[in-house]
Amino acid sequence: MDTVSIVRAVARHVCGTAPRECVFSSRVRIARNIRATPFPHRGDEGALRGPLAVAIAAMEGLNKAGGGFELVDLARLPTLEKEALVECHLISRDLLLAERVSALVVSKKSGASILVNEEDHFRIQVLSGGLRLKRALALAKRIERELDQHTTFAKHDGLGFLTACPTNVGTGLRASVMLQLPALFFARRLETCLQRRVGRALAVRGIYGEGSGPLACLLQISNQTTAGMDEAEALAQVTKAAQDISRDEQRARASIQERFAWDVEDLVYRAAATLTAARSINSGEAMDRLSQVRLGIDLGLLDGVDRRIVDQLMIFIRPASLQVLVGEPMAPRERDMRRAKLIREHLQGLIEVP
Amino acid sequence: MDTVSIVRAVARHVCGTAPRECVFSSRVRIARNIRATPFPHRGDEGALRGPLAVAIAAMEGLNKAGGGFELVDLARLPTLEKEALVECHLISRDLLLAERVSALVVSKKSGASILVNEEDHFRIQVLSGGLRLKRALALAKRIERELDQHTTFAKHDGLGFLTACPTNVGTGLRASVMLQLPALFFARRLETCLQRRVGRALAVRGIYGEGSGPLACLLQISNQTTAGMDEAEALAQVTKAAQDISRDEQRARASIQERFAWDVEDLVYRAAATLTAARSINSGEAMDRLSQVRLGIDLGLLDGVDRRIVDQLMIFIRPASLQVLVGEPMAPRERDMRRAKLIREHLQGLIEVP
Repeated sequence: MDTVSIVRAVARHVCGTAPRECVFSSRVRIARNIRATPFPHRGDEGALRGPLAVAIAAMEGLNKAGGGFELVDLARLPTLEKEALVECHLISRDLLLAERVSALVVSKKSGASILVNEEDHFRIQVLSGGLRLKRALALAKRIERELDQHTTFAKHDGLGFLTACPTNVGTGLRASVMLQLPALFFARRLETCLQRRVGRALAVRGIYGEGSGPLACLLQISNQTTAGMDEAEALAQVTKAAQDISRDEQRARASIQERFAWDVEDLVYRAAATLTAARSINSGEAMDRLSQVRLGIDLGLLDGVDRRIVDQLMIFIRPASLQVLVGEPMAPRERDMRRAKLIREHLQGLIEVP
Repeated sequence: MDTVSIVRAVARHVCGTAPRECVFSSRVRIARNIRATPFPHRGDEGALRGPLAVAIAAMEGLNKAGGGFELVDLARLPTLEKEALVECHLISRDLLLAERVSALVVSKKSGASILVNEEDHFRIQVLSGGLRLKRALALAKRIERELDQHTTFAKHDGLGFLTACPTNVGTGLRASVMLQLPALFFARRLETCLQRRVGRALAVRGIYGEGSGPLACLLQISNQTTAGMDEAEALAQVTKAAQDISRDEQRARASIQERFAWDVEDLVYRAAATLTAARSINSGEAMDRLSQVRLGIDLGLLDGVDRRIVDQLMIFIRPASLQVLVGEPMAPRERDMRRAKLIREHLQGLIEVP
């Protein structure tokens, strides 16, 4: 399977949430390891072939039920394509340089994957657009059961599932949601909201730009705890935080539209105009402006453009993904030009600034 | 005469130069004083009435020949309208607070004026679009001759005409040109060009923004020397510098279009898009973006829009001029919103970003 189609599949699964939905995407990840087998960073080639064989057997099992999984040999994949998979959150940065036996078993159909021999032998992951953690967990558990058919997982009676890093011991589950919170950021209420809504059992992560706010106003909320808490409890905590923050964001949207209508229009229309006019744009600016256009669509300031196109662009314009989509490696300057062109091709004629 | 019509007249006279002309406007100013009469900052009300009476008599004389001059009583003019005249370079900042007898005798027809009781008793000034110093000087001299009919100028046999500030003694003449040099600035050749082209007898002034370059890439070149140099020589020096710098700018334009085509397009199209989309814009950003659009028109990147409209906007959008044109004082925030609206009204539908 080529990387382009994986990037496109991820975009298809992640994008296209309900209108005005603040949760950009949901992700469930389960870490599992084979009993009495060294963890990947300790295993020799022979030991690493074991998990790969198990994953292939599970893939065949899943495909009998129409799973549509395919195998990507990461050891042979060019670095640029691996970087695109990192941008799609399918593999970790760790695997960029590692030359050990590793693979990604991925389904374009469902957006589910098994990462083999990263930090753990298996990392089952399911990505979905919007707030859909339960559905994602159900699918992840189905994949886990299939793996379980072909091996025995490392498990301790008291601790639960064993993992390479102690922070994953127990359920091995990480449930996370990516939220886009432009109005809270605009109204300078993001910090207060997070302090109030995110308990100690949860972690917040964002890509912070140059001193301003999180890139494209995107923040990830996930459970910190995997030991001493069951899967349902972890999911419930993340879901509740996401819902509470979403309500705060919706309130902030109503409030900024009432109190700062001109400033919001200024922000949105400038973003739309810049994206349809720029001949060169770096990924940071593009992400921020796309997020502002997305807000504009949600607030009814821009019409004629499907929010899904904007969401997909946020995935396609990332440095490596862009190069993989275009089909050739490019220097940063060239990339900025090509990125601007891609955005214009998608948005021009659709977005009209009144 | 109302201030709005003066601002519009200045815009009409200054704007509308030949395509690709780098000289935005030319200005000639002649300082004269009445013999044996205290300079304005030293004179009492009685002494200041003298120059005013002379100016009024000269105005009547000029109007017989169809000069179209009218009198503006500066002592009675609201501060905001005086500020608009400062922005049009018709009066100086000094007169904003001064409450002494002072007046502006100005012709909407020719763009010529006599400023009475500023630093000197008379400041004859002629504004013109493009590089037209000779024509401007000829008109200024005609006004000077008319004033001379009604008074005797303060003059010293060796030094020449006497003025309140020693830097104007001699000819009392300041010839200046306003150049717009976006390509030299873009190519980072502005400093080198000025060092090479501007001799010691000339002065360079620009409004520098926040650490970047001169506001809207506008620079003024004028003669420093008024003593020991005749009028023709001063004009020749300023003219030569303006022509040399203009040629450098034209070469820089050809060069950046060849070497940095994408960056230039990016700059121009972003500026055009922002100006037609923004809901709020301060005067500094507006000036810079208008100057970039002007470059775009000159380089053939934008068509459909008359450069004269862009030039006039650069005059209309200044803080006080904008308020005078709109007809009411506004707070800065309101001004930024009204400025954005004015620009959109003038440019929307005309500028199309390809």
